[in-house]
Amino acid sequence: MHPLILQSDFGYADGAVCARYGVAVNVCAGLRVFDLTHDIPQYDIWEASYRLIQTVSYWPEGSVFVSVVDPGVGSTRRSIAVRTATGQYVITPDNGTLTHVKRMCGIVEARVIDESVNRLPNSGESYTFHGRDIYAYTGARLASGEITFEQVGPEVAADSVIELPVIEACMHGDVVSGTIDVLDVRFGSLWTNISRELFLKLGLAHGSRVEVTISNDTRTLYKNIMAYAKSFADVNVGEPLLYINSLDCVAVAINQGSFSKAYNIGTGITWRITLRKAPRIVYE
Amino acid sequence: MHPLILQSDFGYADGAVCARYGVAVNVCAGLRVFDLTHDIPQYDIWEASYRLIQTVSYWPEGSVFVSVVDPGVGSTRRSIAVRTATGQYVITPDNGTLTHVKRMCGIVEARVIDESVNRLPNSGESYTFHGRDIYAYTGARLASGEITFEQVGPEVAADSVIELPVIEACMHGDVVSGTIDVLDVRFGSLWTNISRELFLKLGLAHGSRVEVTISNDTRTLYKNIMAYAKSFADVNVGEPLLYINSLDCVAVAINQGSFSKAYNIGTGITWRITLRKAPRIVYE
Amino acid sequence: MHPLILQSDFGYADGAVCARYGVAVNVCAGLRVFDLTHDIPQYDIWEASYRLIQTVSYWPEGSVFVSVVDPGVGSTRRSIAVRTATGQYVITPDNGTLTHVKRMCGIVEARVIDESVNRLPNSGESYTFHGRDIYAYTGARLASGEITFEQVGPEVAADSVIELPVIEACMHGDVVSGTIDVLDVRFGSLWTNISRELFLKLGLAHGSRVEVTISNDTRTLYKNIMAYAKSFADVNVGEPLLYINSLDCVAVAINQGSFSKAYNIGTGITWRITLRKAPRIVYE
Repeated sequence: MHPLILQSDFGYADGAVCARYGVAVNVCAGLRVFDLTHDIPQYDIWEASYRLIQTVSYWPEGSVFVSVVDPGVGSTRRSIAVRTATGQYVITPDNGTLTHVKRMCGIVEARVIDESVNRLPNSGESYTFHGRDIYAYTGARLASGEITFEQVGPEVAADSVIELPVIEACMHGDVVSGTIDVLDVRFGSLWTNISRELFLKLGLAHGSRVEVTISNDTRTLYKNIMAYAKSFADVNVGEPLLYINSLDCVAVAINQGSFSKAYNIGTGITWRITLRKAPRIVYE
Repeated sequence: MHPLILQSDFGYADGAVCARYGVAVNVCAGLRVFDLTHDIPQYDIWEASYRLIQTVSYWPEGSVFVSVVDPGVGSTRRSIAVRTATGQYVITPDNGTLTHVKRMCGIVEARVIDESVNRLPNSGESYTFHGRDIYAYTGARLASGEITFEQVGPEVAADSVIELPVIEACMHGDVVSGTIDVLDVRFGSLWTNISRELFLKLGLAHGSRVEVTISNDTRTLYKNIMAYAKSFADVNVGEPLLYINSLDCVAVAINQGSFSKAYNIGTGITWRITLRKAPRIVYE
Repeated sequence: MHPLILQSDFGYADGAVCARYGVAVNVCAGLRVFDLTHDIPQYDIWEASYRLIQTVSYWPEGSVFVSVVDPGVGSTRRSIAVRTATGQYVITPDNGTLTHVKRMCGIVEARVIDESVNRLPNSGESYTFHGRDIYAYTGARLASGEITFEQVGPEVAADSVIELPVIEACMHGDVVSGTIDVLDVRFGSLWTNISRELFLKLGLAHGSRVEVTISNDTRTLYKNIMAYAKSFADVNVGEPLLYINSLDCVAVAINQGSFSKAYNIGTGITWRITLRKAPRIVYE
């Protein structure tokens, strides 16, 4: 028996999540069910994808994630289940929710859910509740061992799993550039797609100063110099800093403030960030 | 041992819910405790009632729900425990919280909690914390098997369980009418009390067009024609639709928008919705 | 095996809490993990401290709380684990989070976490994620019995645990005064640090009338007479009342209203409340 972890954009205010828990506990009384989050902004597939990569690998092999952010419910989009390179399973509509897992962790096997057998009994009349009747039900059966991964449905090419468009971080000359992928919702930090490895090619050490430029399409919203800090305590309260986040990527924050609110910074592939070693300023 | 599921209007920001969990785990170390929601709007008995009917039947027989939305705490309102027709238990102040369960699922047995024996030891001085000291404690003891349902307290007539006023959905001529019972908080859909069975008496099939009128008291707030859709993907983004929700009742939504915000629609028995087959419009 | 209970200011919207759950379940597959709350206002150590005292003693002996509200992450503040006088453990940065537990419950033993051994394997490069890599990991190992309390690290004096400044409630003549410690977030009640025992020295019984004065620094924001009620149902809807809360201290509320919003009352040691027996008013 393995843990089942649920994610959605349903929120916590109504009974939708609890009904899924009920379906899961009905499949197997002792099943351990957890939440990733249910506060994904409505229909935001990108954020659902990001929250998966932020958490999947911390869970034991065999853990089953069920993610339902599904603007196309009822359309012809596939329902799939994949096994990651680190041994967890994810069940989700195939709409881009697996973008980051596929790119950063790897998918080793993918299957399309056979809905003719993997569907909550007597749920045939409801067409809009795949989250409960198919995904949670199938996830619970896979996590509890009632079905094997093979029994989820026929295998499809892992390559065929849909990805949202991504712009890779890269280095040109003495400048590293990338995109702002996501906000640390609560603290207003910006998380970028620039890996620590790429960043360190700038030849910086903790305490070095970095010139950070942020632009949206053609407009520059921020250009300033800040410290590459080991942690928040290295800078004063209210001071900006660049640090390595829990995904081992570059992040930008204001110590005890909100960088995103301070400068109206958003997320997505039109939000570009460039980094270079700060120029030495000489007063003569 | 059975699952214990908690609902309240306490929110998640303070320690109230966690104290209840502690009481439950203290009763029985291995007890499995879950949340329905704690985001019921304060004192909103109607919504508490609705969230119960939305979830109760998805849980195994013997599951124990504890719902505490209790504007009359400390008054003479009874504390009751009931067994539903589908075999779950609900413990709650008898203030209307069981309205929908009684009407739509059925109550087969009701008991008044004997507070002289079913009360957290050493909690005698607190008069305002029935949720923790009586309901969570009694729920945990019932779920764990430490007491039987009979030991909760003396039986009372199931008929005596208090109901909030309800207006039944009905058909007159070629029009079906009902009330707007609740919002799907996150997506802004309106959930009505019109069952699929009643709705289908209009002779409509998926894809048919329905004229939907919504009024509050004497004022009409919405009158328009929309499709009876199998699911959201059947209409364009931003287009309204009528569909069958997870309670097998009629719901009205805007695909990826919020119907309730778009037209300032509220809930309750003064909010009436009428449906009829859309007239054929002929341009000559 | 004992329960593990997590508290933080991370919120529920991203993957931070779920990653901690994963770390804990990875330490021990059967570990039972619960939430106190993750909605502590960012960096609000005082409220984190208060939520602990509100809940700790309801949990079984041996339960392990992990609280991470840590504005000084990466600084030289200690990471500590303590055993309370009621037998629970709390693991936290030593930044004042234990103020109320130390004063109101008591700390019988304190240890500094030895981070060289109590750290998630392969997490060496992340400096900002003590919550996950050290606190949740160590908490899970202590709760599961994988390490003993002694193995957490070397003992330090319980006296050395840091406390935030507190002003004790006291009685002068016929007046009892104290501070407003915290809001009941959802219902807008004010919770004071005046114990029932101290309050009763005013010689009041349920139904007596109390003169309540609230001031912030030199400014008086509220002065009025209200009933000392057994519970909310003793007063009308919209009427103020004074009652004894779940921590056995004096609280002030408006029945079905928000006292804090009605009079713009805040919390902290500059917010003073004084109580005395209401004068008898004679009309001649």
